[in-house]
Amino acid sequence: MPVIQQLTVIGVGLIGGSLARALRRANFCQRVVGCGRSESELNKAVALDVIDHYELDIANAVTNADIVVLAVPLGAMENVLRNMVGHLKPSAVVTDVGSAKESVVLAARRAFGAVPNQFVPGHPIAGTENSGVEASFAELFQQRRVILTPLPETNADATALVRKMWLATGATVDEMSVAQHDAMLAATSHLPHLLAYTLVDTLLQADSSEQIFRFAAGGFRDFTRIASSDPVMWRDICLANREAIVAMLERFRQQLDVVQNAIEQGDGFSLKEMFVRAKSARDRNLRTLQ
Amino acid sequence: MPVIQQLTVIGVGLIGGSLARALRRANFCQRVVGCGRSESELNKAVALDVIDHYELDIANAVTNADIVVLAVPLGAMENVLRNMVGHLKPSAVVTDVGSAKESVVLAARRAFGAVPNQFVPGHPIAGTENSGVEASFAELFQQRRVILTPLPETNADATALVRKMWLATGATVDEMSVAQHDAMLAATSHLPHLLAYTLVDTLLQADSSEQIFRFAAGGFRDFTRIASSDPVMWRDICLANREAIVAMLERFRQQLDVVQNAIEQGDGFSLKEMFVRAKSARDRNLRTLQ
Repeated sequence: MPVIQQLTVIGVGLIGGSLARALRRANFCQRVVGCGRSESELNKAVALDVIDHYELDIANAVTNADIVVLAVPLGAMENVLRNMVGHLKPSAVVTDVGSAKESVVLAARRAFGAVPNQFVPGHPIAGTENSGVEASFAELFQQRRVILTPLPETNADATALVRKMWLATGATVDEMSVAQHDAMLAATSHLPHLLAYTLVDTLLQADSSEQIFRFAAGGFRDFTRIASSDPVMWRDICLANREAIVAMLERFRQQLDVVQNAIEQGDGFSLKEMFVRAKSARDRNLRTLQ
Repeated sequence: MPVIQQLTVIGVGLIGGSLARALRRANFCQRVVGCGRSESELNKAVALDVIDHYELDIANAVTNADIVVLAVPLGAMENVLRNMVGHLKPSAVVTDVGSAKESVVLAARRAFGAVPNQFVPGHPIAGTENSGVEASFAELFQQRRVILTPLPETNADATALVRKMWLATGATVDEMSVAQHDAMLAATSHLPHLLAYTLVDTLLQADSSEQIFRFAAGGFRDFTRIASSDPVMWRDICLANREAIVAMLERFRQQLDVVQNAIEQGDGFSLKEMFVRAKSARDRNLRTLQ
């Protein structure tokens, strides 16, 4: 028997679509209602059997929902939240998948006046560089980590239900504070994306950029994979997690000063020491990831 | 019938070992002699059938060679070249696989007094983050690009033979100047490696580095794959291609200033514009690579 009757997914793209697929497969919900701005994308989602039907109006989409998942870019969260005010069932639980949590909490506070007890901020650490419902797949969250950042005022039952939802996708679920989450993601995800975008853009501005890209090897392809991610999503993340990202950027640049100085001084000892340290940390970390 | 009798590979690691494997499979040479500093590695190479036999002494290893391939870290090139002076057959062709070409040319000039006409600087744009003969495989160079940077004084027949050798591995071969090569590799390979090493090292110094690595996602794994590369090789590359790398680093840092400024100013328009530009260049480039 399904755990809930209606799941409403707002933003049926890579993450929202994959979540809907995984929960349908796990028989977690009786039906899935999709909502979004692009009717053609929503029609695709129906055709791909990712959702049962769609609503273009947020109020209609959430009216009968037991769980509402916001899977829109961070910049769209507040507007979406405002549009559901007064239309949710009292028991409805709302959660999101945004890569930065403080900005979503602030958006909820502005939209509802106070953060609703039934709102559970969340973030699945999963994704690919592809976008859109056609890129979604039910296995995306298997053996991935989902972080929930409930607030002191968050209803424990609401958190438990969102946890149950993610466990049904095959993910593991951790809890931490909003600030911890945002600092950690700035380090492991937001900064690497910025560096990859910046590197590609730097090369693009070189005189011989055509040739540069032609001779790029596999290492470059892997290093810059994340620079193929959705620009709107990443613009919003940069704006939403500004402080933590700038703090990480500053630390990175200090370290880059050290490296550049070692190169300029011909200090092979320090360079090797740093490379050995990084390789050993990365190799340990790689084993953890596999 | 094999093209040459004896191939001598000095440094039977990932690149040297893969080249030996590919050329044996292609029946390019009658026998392969390996040379290196670690007898246990050379014994592995014999056991793995990568080489026919080995010599620990460079003079002995090159005496009967038709082609000598230097596949040692850049910092070891000059010493290896010095040790072969006076021991090569007059017809022997010498080439290398170093990631920076000017430093190898200078090493050859210092070792021989002048760069020998039979020396063809080369560089296969291929590799993995793994090291050692056990990581080598015959297919490594298939559909990869090899760059040769012959000098004005380089014998055209010598260049033609080295070209033929690389074509036999399944690679394509291009020629360009030493300076062009070094600037291009600084952009597409050396800078990305430095950024990956520096990012991992930055995170390692954070208070919560254990947690940071635990929650790292697939994007981080790909982005930092090259930080698992051999530290000695990369120390040598940084020292050998110092000027081109520092020049690229400066350009990258200027671009990073622009990005950081846009984040601090909340300039979503510029951020999105930059991300769109980079994504589109990367997507074009990705298609080329696949």
